[in-house]
Formats: sequence, structure tokens, C-alpha cells
Amino acid sequence: MIIVLKPNVSSRETAAVLKEIKRLGYRPHLMKGVARSVIGAIGDERSHQSLDVLRAWPQVESVTPIQKRYKLVSREAHPQNSTVRARDVVIGGSRVVIMAGPCSVESERQILETAHAVRDAGATVLRGGAFKPRTSPYEFQGLGEKGLKLLSKARRETGLPIITELLSEAHADLVAEHADILQIGARNAQNFQLIIAAAKTGKPVLLKRGLSMKIEEWLLAGEYVLSNRNSGLLFCERGIRTFETYTRNTLDLSAIPILKQESHCPVVIDPSQGAGRADLVMSLSKGAIAMGADALLLEVHPNPKEALSDSAQQLSLDGFRRLMAELKPFIAAAGRE
Amino acid sequence: MIIVLKPNVSSRETAAVLKEIKRLGYRPHLMKGVARSVIGAIGDERSHQSLDVLRAWPQVESVTPIQKRYKLVSREAHPQNSTVRARDVVIGGSRVVIMAGPCSVESERQILETAHAVRDAGATVLRGGAFKPRTSPYEFQGLGEKGLKLLSKARRETGLPIITELLSEAHADLVAEHADILQIGARNAQNFQLIIAAAKTGKPVLLKRGLSMKIEEWLLAGEYVLSNRNSGLLFCERGIRTFETYTRNTLDLSAIPILKQESHCPVVIDPSQGAGRADLVMSLSKGAIAMGADALLLEVHPNPKEALSDSAQQLSLDGFRRLMAELKPFIAAAGRE
Amino acid sequence: MIIVLKPNVSSRETAAVLKEIKRLGYRPHLMKGVARSVIGAIGDERSHQSLDVLRAWPQVESVTPIQKRYKLVSREAHPQNSTVRARDVVIGGSRVVIMAGPCSVESERQILETAHAVRDAGATVLRGGAFKPRTSPYEFQGLGEKGLKLLSKARRETGLPIITELLSEAHADLVAEHADILQIGARNAQNFQLIIAAAKTGKPVLLKRGLSMKIEEWLLAGEYVLSNRNSGLLFCERGIRTFETYTRNTLDLSAIPILKQESHCPVVIDPSQGAGRADLVMSLSKGAIAMGADALLLEVHPNPKEALSDSAQQLSLDGFRRLMAELKPFIAAAGRE
Amino acid sequence: MIIVLKPNVSSRETAAVLKEIKRLGYRPHLMKGVARSVIGAIGDERSHQSLDVLRAWPQVESVTPIQKRYKLVSREAHPQNSTVRARDVVIGGSRVVIMAGPCSVESERQILETAHAVRDAGATVLRGGAFKPRTSPYEFQGLGEKGLKLLSKARRETGLPIITELLSEAHADLVAEHADILQIGARNAQNFQLIIAAAKTGKPVLLKRGLSMKIEEWLLAGEYVLSNRNSGLLFCERGIRTFETYTRNTLDLSAIPILKQESHCPVVIDPSQGAGRADLVMSLSKGAIAMGADALLLEVHPNPKEALSDSAQQLSLDGFRRLMAELKPFIAAAGRE
Repeated sequence: MIIVLKPNVSSRETAAVLKEIKRLGYRPHLMKGVARSVIGAIGDERSHQSLDVLRAWPQVESVTPIQKRYKLVSREAHPQNSTVRARDVVIGGSRVVIMAGPCSVESERQILETAHAVRDAGATVLRGGAFKPRTSPYEFQGLGEKGLKLLSKARRETGLPIITELLSEAHADLVAEHADILQIGARNAQNFQLIIAAAKTGKPVLLKRGLSMKIEEWLLAGEYVLSNRNSGLLFCERGIRTFETYTRNTLDLSAIPILKQESHCPVVIDPSQGAGRADLVMSLSKGAIAMGADALLLEVHPNPKEALSDSAQQLSLDGFRRLMAELKPFIAAAGRE
Repeated sequence: MIIVLKPNVSSRETAAVLKEIKRLGYRPHLMKGVARSVIGAIGDERSHQSLDVLRAWPQVESVTPIQKRYKLVSREAHPQNSTVRARDVVIGGSRVVIMAGPCSVESERQILETAHAVRDAGATVLRGGAFKPRTSPYEFQGLGEKGLKLLSKARRETGLPIITELLSEAHADLVAEHADILQIGARNAQNFQLIIAAAKTGKPVLLKRGLSMKIEEWLLAGEYVLSNRNSGLLFCERGIRTFETYTRNTLDLSAIPILKQESHCPVVIDPSQGAGRADLVMSLSKGAIAMGADALLLEVHPNPKEALSDSAQQLSLDGFRRLMAELKPFIAAAGRE
Repeated sequence: MIIVLKPNVSSRETAAVLKEIKRLGYRPHLMKGVARSVIGAIGDERSHQSLDVLRAWPQVESVTPIQKRYKLVSREAHPQNSTVRARDVVIGGSRVVIMAGPCSVESERQILETAHAVRDAGATVLRGGAFKPRTSPYEFQGLGEKGLKLLSKARRETGLPIITELLSEAHADLVAEHADILQIGARNAQNFQLIIAAAKTGKPVLLKRGLSMKIEEWLLAGEYVLSNRNSGLLFCERGIRTFETYTRNTLDLSAIPILKQESHCPVVIDPSQGAGRADLVMSLSKGAIAMGADALLLEVHPNPKEALSDSAQQLSLDGFRRLMAELKPFIAAAGRE
Repeated sequence: MIIVLKPNVSSRETAAVLKEIKRLGYRPHLMKGVARSVIGAIGDERSHQSLDVLRAWPQVESVTPIQKRYKLVSREAHPQNSTVRARDVVIGGSRVVIMAGPCSVESERQILETAHAVRDAGATVLRGGAFKPRTSPYEFQGLGEKGLKLLSKARRETGLPIITELLSEAHADLVAEHADILQIGARNAQNFQLIIAAAKTGKPVLLKRGLSMKIEEWLLAGEYVLSNRNSGLLFCERGIRTFETYTRNTLDLSAIPILKQESHCPVVIDPSQGAGRADLVMSLSKGAIAMGADALLLEVHPNPKEALSDSAQQLSLDGFRRLMAELKPFIAAAGRE
């Protein structure tokens, strides 16, 4: 840690800070500068107590950590890319994985029709929401357990593994019984109790980035998965909140190379949520593939005009087939399958 | 709802939209404009299905709701200010309520000393965290149930009602047994399952604003409390996430007059979290009072230099007494007690 | 325009609004809804005075425009893609254009060495700053006119057209004398006097997006170029300001498909400024190409370790060659040359 | 400066960095930590060249400055509050100054009527725009020189000093001839050429905060005024751009205590621009006064319903009188006149 003292701090006040640093288990290193003194505190910032308390001292101007706060998700801890397996599907390997399906499971017919169509077009994971977090209590909240059963049925029919959202700690076992990957949504990205509950099921966890989550905070939230003995962690970028109002969110594609640098975990991009507009999904998907995404999570609906949620951002089955065709040269250019 | 069609839409395509609007239970009203046509759809947007699906139609450019999406929290629904009672303390009345205490309950001595000191200085509610949501799994997570018991003890000794955070649906009954007001933190502000669990305990709920929550979304999250038969809702502004890095968050004091206009529920301001710096708390508190806040939520610690969390933003006991003295003329100027 | 009235507005107050709408040249269309009335005002919003004044009326809740506010930059006005020519180089055609060079012109040797190297690696436009806008008055402000002359010399030697920034209205003629494209920087993106001065030189204008500029505002700023009889407008995305601190800015690649939809003007991406880190430039460039960018603007320096400005985000000559090689398959996948 | 090296850097690579630090005039101080080494570089960061170039070195992870980058605006440089005088009016003293007037000067009658009314209600400076920066080229751009002459006439009649916006370097002399304070608008807050031109007129300069300007950048922009031998600098907060859409901008009132801590210059608050809604101006003004603002800049129009710009955010003359009456107790509570 680097502790910057205020200008004109007496040597007595400085000594007090040095003493406290030692008491907290660090080795202090005083540098007297032109205008103010700076102290380097040597020691493992992750096993010792934080020096953040020093910010409350009147003679201290700032405290800056040197080490990164995340361990298990970091590339330093695990230099190779890690892969995550959902049944036969491997995410993070040479093959780009397409996860597709409706925003919400609405009926048996809707989910089965979509499952067959997306599989035939090349998707290898089926997505679909059974429990839906909705901004307003007056909106459609999903079919719940019935939706999970329909997803299971779709898997039996198509062989596609299932990804679906976990909304409540109380549902963890139920959802894990049906799903192959548990999704933690953006609104729950710092709901640590829910993340722990998901991790403890042993199923892979796809952790969406919160609407205003810094990448460091996202990595630390992922740390809650790995530190609960679950190595199946996927990070999913789905758009951050900015001042721009043309799109619902601003998809931060630079998260791909950053996560690849900082972490070993696979990176998934959700362009449907990111843009909130089906007409931008094609272009964003190409960009994501070119930049190294391991998987795409796409909203596809047999009839977007009648969808019970997020109708504007769901691709039609035809639109999805077109997308898959147009993505091919970019997947090849990226050296993937 | 207002539906704007794209330029040069054929009359057949227009007719299809009009038909769908009728099918969904609205009365359509076509206006042919210079460049494009606009349709007004008359009907109760809250009892009918949303016309949002129309955004997926190729001939539709935009769909804009006219009615506000929140009902029970709105001032239209309840023109008078509502008040919330925690034991003998009334929030939202003529008296400005000061809720004070440490970020985390750390020990019996710490919480009792603080409780007595803040009561003597004029606080009427005691705050203190027992379950702490922490960005990193390696940080102090609170004393849990032991912390709750210490808070109960502090209440017995001082008579101050208790506010503490609820982190997990699984703890709802336990926390409600000890607390007089349940706090939903910023990270859980759209964890609707947790809000519902809090509401169902029957205790008042203080709902913090999420880091990047629009006021409309916040009001809708509050709707989850009132629509679960709990009328004890408090909104608490605690800073939003912006590009500014000088402060941890940007306290959005304009939320006070906006909430007072849109809603009947009391408004609480948390300047400690808002600024992340004790040295700004005095000024922010004065501003909050002048602008009509019903209560302040303040972090006070007998020894901020040794606090186990958020040390930099906690006031000392002396600092708190000074604050209470300096606030007096502003409380009077605001016509409050 | 759509004017929404407040609930319970009397018919007299409604009539007053209708009368004012007529007076301002629109044809009003009253729709009585469940909770409130809505008025559609038919008329050309761009030739008539805005109805925005109605927002000041106590009985009016909101005023929403229907037409887009930009004309000349819009795709509606010019359905085909437009191209911009700088000497022999055409931007916006089938060939992806690479503009490369140092952040600042520092010396004759530096700019000539870079110019030859980037041309040999495939760049077709040379960039370099002569007048530099610097956040602090104590930082290097560029070589000024001497820098412009060095750029001219580099053009004579290599044949590469020049792009450089215009900082002051007073320099417009001087800069236009040397440059083939004038760049308006992000800090001046709403300095309309400067944009007009640039447009009036007749040289093509590359308009960077302001740090917190909505796309609509950007298009309107571009309108200042086209409406001053200069058809050579390029939009350049270079990162917006968000809460994320890992990168200097957040490069908003979704601006590419959005601009392609809304406007006919070529789109340039500046990944160097966007990320502020050379190690992310490769990935961001691939994404930009895949998403349809017409040109890249890249910072390249023969010795980034000694650059006088923005050293961390400039590619070395080797790095640039590697980038050009790796981009090739993506350019092909995008159907470009 | 603090230079953090990457993990596992060889001693040869470390030595190279140490050598470069010395070459740039700093005294390096190596600290070998657990995972990586850290170098403190001692020396005056403002007179020496920045060590920022080190960020381009492959073995360097980060470079963090210790000293603040601003000098003349800082409270360290000038511990007492400074005051700025416009004719007889002193800003930054014990008296809170109210600057009021219309967004745009529209006619002789409008400006004279407003000037008399705001003076009678207690304003001591008259504001009014003659040159208006407008997002779209198709909007009213102000009366220009004619507007300046009307402002001069209003001053002759009422004795109120004038504040008006400077939009173009080319107008600096003209505007300074009529105005007592030159305003630099938010869109030009980093148009350094314009700030320098304003500073050189010798008239006081009110520098609005840019829409997404960090406080440090704002202070540095102010440095351009003081370092051009003009000590009459006022900082004016007028709202920053955030994700919230209820208000046009988010007025960041915490800027008041921060500027008071970091700088000696007077602080002005513009609640009209900040909110974009006249109905919030009252509350925001009270908050600003309570938090220590030295002056308010308020938009007042004799007939907001017919204003040519920003009608929704201008107070009526009656509204202004009411505001002045309600502010009194808060001015007293703040210990001001």
C-alpha cells in the first residue's frame, strides 16, 4: 500500500502512522518528498488487514493499494485459460459457443419450437427465463417451476444444455435440478448471498456484469464463486449504464480483452440485452467474435411481435439463422470454430 | 401510449398496427403527420398489457408510455405525505429524524458507547450493520446474529429503535425480530425477492437507491413494498455512480424535491455513503435538511481510526456532536424541529 | 410533437394550450385518455418554432418531439453512403482506411521516420498533432506552426495526406493550408464556432465525439458542418466517459451500427484514445473492422517510451506492423479491402 | 510519483527504470514487495517532466502522481478565500450574491423589465445571453452584438453589473467592452483557447463545469485563467451528465465543499441549468446556500411561456420574488447576508 501524508505533517504525526502500519503487519518505508511524505507499506495486502483505516487519520491524504484484490479469478493465479463444461459443451475452448433462446419461457410450443430451430441453426446451449426479475411488480414475472420443466423437456428433445436465471436463494436447488448453467442477472450481480447459493449447487455460474459495475468489482464478485469451491465461472458482459439513450445500455466490448488479460475465465457477450434492439445484434455479435468472446448469449423468439417480455430485442428465427451465417467468416478470422 | 410509425409506411401496414392496438384493449387514434404518422392509444396502461411489443414491429419507430408506471408510491395515489413509525419515532412528520451509529457492529462496548453518545447528542434511531455486503469475499462480513443481539441490547439500554440491513431472504425473520426498520442496501435495490421478503415481515423498510438506479426504477422497486401490504416505506438516497472520482459516489440531493413531488413517502439522506468522506458530511447534511429531507442516516464511530469497515467516512463522537449543533439553524430555517 | 397534459386539467386550460399550438403553426389533435389528455401537434417541427415553450405551462406535463432534429446528416436525407476524399484517398468506400502517426509531432526525424514506416505497413493517411489541447497549462502544447510544416514535409516525402487537429478559430486558415483533413477534438465537439470555422475552409472535417455526447447531439454538431456547405464530414468515435476506471474512456463500438443507420457519413474509430492503453488497441481495432468502421485512427510512435504526450497509448512501429497483419482476415471477413 | 512494476520483473529491467527516473530528474526509491516492486520517485512533479512516459514501458504496471497538478487555483497556494469584484459587487465575501436574468436577451422591453424586477427583488448582478451556443444549428442563436448593447443599456438604467457568455475568441474584445463578468459555458469548459482569450481581457471569468468534467480537470481549466494573469476566477457548477433522465442534468452540490477545500476561488451554483426545471430551482437554491455557495446564477424571464430558449427552466418574476423571500432564513442560517 502507498500512504500519502498531507503537507507539513510533523515528525511525531508521521511516527504514529509508521507505528500503526507496523502494528497491522506491514513493513513501512518512508520517503520524504518535496511537498509531502509518502510511505510504502510492504506486505501481503490480501492476507493482512487493509490499511484503509488510515484514511480516517487526519494526517493522511490518501491510501492506495498496490496489489489486486482478486486472487482466484486472476490470470496470475491461473495463467492458462480455464474452460467450463455444461454436459457435452465446453465454453472457453477453440469453439465459439452460441447460447440462444427466448427471453422468457412462455409456453411449451414456444420453447420447443425455438429449441429445435436454434439447434438446427448451430446453437449448442438453450437459454430461457423461468423466473424473471422485472422492474415493475405489475409486469410478467415468468412461469416459475413450470418454465423450468418445459426447459427440461426441451433438453430431452434436443439434447441442448440449459441456461436459466436464478433469482432467489430459496430456488437454488430447484433451479439447479433443471439447469446446466445458472445465470446471475445484472440486478443481482452484487447480491453475494445469491452468488454463494448458486456456487454451492456445483453447477457452472454465468455472472452478468451489473449495470454500473467496475471490472474490478465484477472480478471480485466472481471471486465469491471460485472461493466457494466452484470452478465453473463465466463472465457475461451485457451492457453498462451510461448517459446515452439511443440504446438501452452501452455494450462495453472492451471488457473482452480486459477480462482476457486479468482473468482466466471464459467471457460471454450478451448483445441482445446490451443494445435492447434486435437491429444492432448482428453488428455487436461480429464485434464480440472478432474481439475474442468465447460465447454469445442471444435472445431468439419464434414471434418477437408477441413476446411477453423484451420483444424489441429478440431475434426472429429467420434473423437468428441469418446471424449464424454472417458470423462464420468472423469466427474463422478469429481462429475459432 | 404513443406509437410513432416509420416514414412512408403503407396504409396496410398502418392498419395492422391499429388492429393490434385494439386487440390489446386500447382505443387507437391515428394522426397523419408531415413525415410520419403517430398513433395515440387510449386505455389504462397499467391494467392492460403493455404495447411495448409493438417495438418489435418493423413499421414502428418508437413506443412511448404516457402514464407513470408506479401507482401506490405515487403522490397521485396518496396526495398527503405519509409517515412511518418505528416504535415512538415518526419519520416524515415535522421533526427531522437523525439515525446514527457505526457502519458495522464490532463489539458490545463499541455499540453501547456509540448508542449512548448519539442519543445524548440528539439522535433518535440507532443504526449498525450486523450482516455486511462486501465487495470482496476477503473483507469483514459483519458479526451476524451476534451483532443483532448487541443491537437489541443497545435498544434496551437507550430506548433507541434500531435500523439494520437485511442481506438475505433467509434472514428476514431473524433480522425482523431484532430490528425496528429493515434496510435494503444499494447493491440489493433491485433484488426484488429480498424486498418482498422484507416487506412481508411487516416492519418498515428503508430502500436505498441503487448505484445507477433511475428515480423511476427506484419508485417501482418501492412499489414492491407497498404492493406487498406494507405501508412503511422510506426512500434513502446514498449517492449514485458517476465519472467523478474525488468522492466515492455523487450524492444526488435533487432526489429530495423530485421524490417529494412524485411520491408521498418520507425521504432519508445518507451523506456518509454518499461522499465516502467524513469531511464532507457536515456540508451535505446541511444541504439535505435545507432541501427538505425527513431524516439523515449517519455513520458515527467512537474511534473511526480503528473501524473494521468504511473508516474514512465515519464521524467521531465529537464530530457528530458538532454536526448536531451546526444543523440546528438549518432545521429551524426549514420549518422543522 | 406530443404534448401530455397533467391529470385533471380543466377544459379552459386545455383550450388555451390548443390555441397556443395553433398560433405556433401546428395542427392540434386532442385525445382524452383515462387519467390525462394528450395532444398530438401536426406540423414540420424543423421549420416551425419548437413547442418546447409549452413545458413552461403549468397544465403541461411533458412535450416530446417526434421528428429527428438533424436533417442533412441523416440517412433519410441521403440514403446512400457518402464518401469523403482527401487527395487520392477515399473514406467510406470499399477500402478500409488506416490513419496512423504520432499523438504529437515532436521533431523532423520522428515524424518522417513514422510516416515512412506507417506508409510501408499500409497506412494511407498520416496523423500528427501540431496544436495540442492539454488538460493542464503546464503540459507540452505542441510545436504549432513548425509542426504543421513538418507534416507538410512528411506528405511531400511519402505522398500521405495529412490529418491534424484544429484548436482555435484563429488558426483555421493556417491549419487548412497544411492539412488535408481537419480534426475537431473531443473537448471541442460542441465548440460550434470552431466547427463552423473548420467547415468554412472547405477541407474535410473529422468530428470526434465529445466525452459525454449523446449520439443525437453528435449528429447535430455534424449538422453544423454540412449546413455550412461542406459535405466532407467524418464522425470519429474515441471513447465516452463512464464510471469505469480500468480504461481511460469506454470505446462505444455500438456507435458504428447506429451511425450507419442514422447517417450516411463515414465512421472512423480511434481505439488509441478510446482505451488509453496500447495493449487493448489490437482487440478494439478488430472489433471496429468487424462492426463496419470505414477507417481507423491510430497512434503510432517510433519510441513510445519517450513520447512527449500520451505515451501509454501509442503503438510502436513493430506493434503497428503486427496490427496491420492481424487485421487482414477481419477486413476480408467484413467484405472490405 | 509512484511507479509499480509488474510481477517477476528482472533486476536488469528494474535498473533500467531506475536509470530513466534519474534521467528525468527524480530521486528513485526502490521498495521490494511481496508480489512486485514499487518505486517512489522524489522530485517536484510540476516543474519536472512527467513520469507518465513510464507507462509505455513493458515492465511497468502503473504510474501514479502524488502531487496535485493544479497550483494557482489551489488552497495550498492561497490559504485565504479570494474574492472577485465586478464593479461594486464582491463575490466570495460575506454577502451571498444573486445573479439573475433571462437565458437569452430577446428584446429591449424584455431585458429592461427583467433587470428592474430582479434588482428590486434583491439581485445584484444581471445575467443574459447575447451569443447562445445551441445544440442544433436550427435553433435561436441569440441577438449577438445587439444583445450586448441592450445589456449595457440595462446596466445604465439599473446599475447592475452584467454577466454574459463568451462563445468565440473573435468576440472577446467586443464582449468584454459590454460585460463585467465573462461566462465560459459548459460546452467550452475545455476550450482552452477561449478561456485564455477571456482571461486576457482582464475581466473576471466565470467558468462553468463541463458536462462530464472531473473536479480535477475543472480546477486545471481554471488554472488557464490564473496563469494568464487574471485573478478574477469564479467556478460555477451547473449540473453534470449522468444516467438519470428525470432532470436534464444532475446538479452536483457536493462540488461546493470540495471546491472550498481544494481551492480559494468563489463558488457559484446555477440551479436553473442544473435541473432544467423551474419547479426544482427553489429547493436546489436552498441547498446551495446551506452548503456554502457564494452566489447563485438564476434564469428569470418576465414570461417564461414565451421565452425563445430554455423556457421550462426559467422562473417568472413572481417566482423569483418568492424564491428570494424563502432563501432569507437559509442565508441567515449559513451566517451570510
